[in-house]
Amino acid sequence: MRTDHDVPSASASDSGGGPTFAAPVVEGREPTDAELARTLAAEVTTGVLSTVARNPVGTPFGSLAPFGLDGDARPVLCISELAEHTRNLQANPRSSLLVARPAVAGVDPLAGARLTLIGHTLPVPPAEVEAAKAVHLEGNPYAAGYIDYGDFSLWRLQVDVVRYVGGYGRMSWVDLDAWRSAEPDPVAPLADGAIEHLNADHADACLLMVQRLGGRPDAVSAEVTALDRYGIDLLATGSEGAGRVRLPFDEPVVTGPDIRAATVALAHRARAAD
Amino acid sequence: MRTDHDVPSASASDSGGGPTFAAPVVEGREPTDAELARTLAAEVTTGVLSTVARNPVGTPFGSLAPFGLDGDARPVLCISELAEHTRNLQANPRSSLLVARPAVAGVDPLAGARLTLIGHTLPVPPAEVEAAKAVHLEGNPYAAGYIDYGDFSLWRLQVDVVRYVGGYGRMSWVDLDAWRSAEPDPVAPLADGAIEHLNADHADACLLMVQRLGGRPDAVSAEVTALDRYGIDLLATGSEGAGRVRLPFDEPVVTGPDIRAATVALAHRARAAD
Repeated sequence: MRTDHDVPSASASDSGGGPTFAAPVVEGREPTDAELARTLAAEVTTGVLSTVARNPVGTPFGSLAPFGLDGDARPVLCISELAEHTRNLQANPRSSLLVARPAVAGVDPLAGARLTLIGHTLPVPPAEVEAAKAVHLEGNPYAAGYIDYGDFSLWRLQVDVVRYVGGYGRMSWVDLDAWRSAEPDPVAPLADGAIEHLNADHADACLLMVQRLGGRPDAVSAEVTALDRYGIDLLATGSEGAGRVRLPFDEPVVTGPDIRAATVALAHRARAAD
Repeated sequence: MRTDHDVPSASASDSGGGPTFAAPVVEGREPTDAELARTLAAEVTTGVLSTVARNPVGTPFGSLAPFGLDGDARPVLCISELAEHTRNLQANPRSSLLVARPAVAGVDPLAGARLTLIGHTLPVPPAEVEAAKAVHLEGNPYAAGYIDYGDFSLWRLQVDVVRYVGGYGRMSWVDLDAWRSAEPDPVAPLADGAIEHLNADHADACLLMVQRLGGRPDAVSAEVTALDRYGIDLLATGSEGAGRVRLPFDEPVVTGPDIRAATVALAHRARAAD
């Protein structure tokens, strides 16, 4: 991962006499940008396609594009020959697809993760159309209403370059083989519920974890902010300031029961560390 | 408005023996595409900027871009010279901004409205920077944390072409003067609440409206689906099928009390029409 940008909020507060920030404590494995990108692309199935406009010629043109991702991590689109982007692609296949989580009211949009897949979008060869239809429909079931219309056809973005931005201070050009081979996080759809449960019902255990396993004995509060197959992120607050603590699971989790077992194990270890 | 595309869902059902569709009944004024576009751009303040990549050169590159809209309906961006899109714009100002409502789970993303503003994005001249900052911060208050950083600067999209897509079957190239002079719908932020109230508490009155004012005496149910400054849209269902009924207010509404008075007037007129 290349980090080529400051974290504005932290820096702004550092210089403004606001809250202090503790150094992050990171233990164990974290998801790679390739894994984060594939997880995002599995969760969000409508992107913005940028094509080269014919008029004014050469101007990049953004349009909404639902997609499915095939086994080689290529976005599969179902587009109408009457649509601007299709006419643009017929003249010039260079294109990219921006994938971002929908904006949430009250949350800085630039703090969220997004992904740009850059390459060439070309018609799917006839022999592969049926498979491509299935891929597209998995991402966008609404296409069932028009996928067999005469003016609609299937196109596929051959990805040459992958740009991932995970929020402030985290961005990289993702290796193409890593993008293709990475797997979406299997527990991503369960993470929000698990985080809510941990914060609502196990705040004491979470505090013990950051105090005894996360190098923050000063902490007086801890809030789980993220959970993925490899572990959890907590925001620890205490006399040292507010800072991130990353705690790994013993092994990657795949299911809801796995998450439960792994977080219980962390809590047990924190109690035993007294 | 130019309509250059079929309505897939209706056509699909027509040929598939599904529900029947009644011809729409449209009475009175409707918002223009320019007004719908300005309303969308006032509501959604994060777009996707398409720029021309430097590497691979010529490929359109999409990235997330919060914006504010200035008095001449130009998007004002605050971007870092370290970011890809800024470097791209420095090499080539041709660009566009796609603005769409965030996807809603369970709703076809292509049924929603979106807008592409196409033109050139250039640095704001020094004399206009303070005014541009205020415009940007109104759209994106989170920028307060970094707008004065040395590597951030204000850029403005000079709009040459406006493409509006209102969903299936409604799309147009919007006249530039119409785009600049159109006003966002003042009741747009109130519409959802008013629609919910009408459907929950005044279903009988809504049914009378479509039966007696909307040319659908066959209707057995009516649901308000949209409300704007000029009137309401209802989905009427009866022996003739399901179809749109558009009913105008006596004059454009501006406030919540205006909406109430205008819908009460419609209900009175429907009762009096017996």
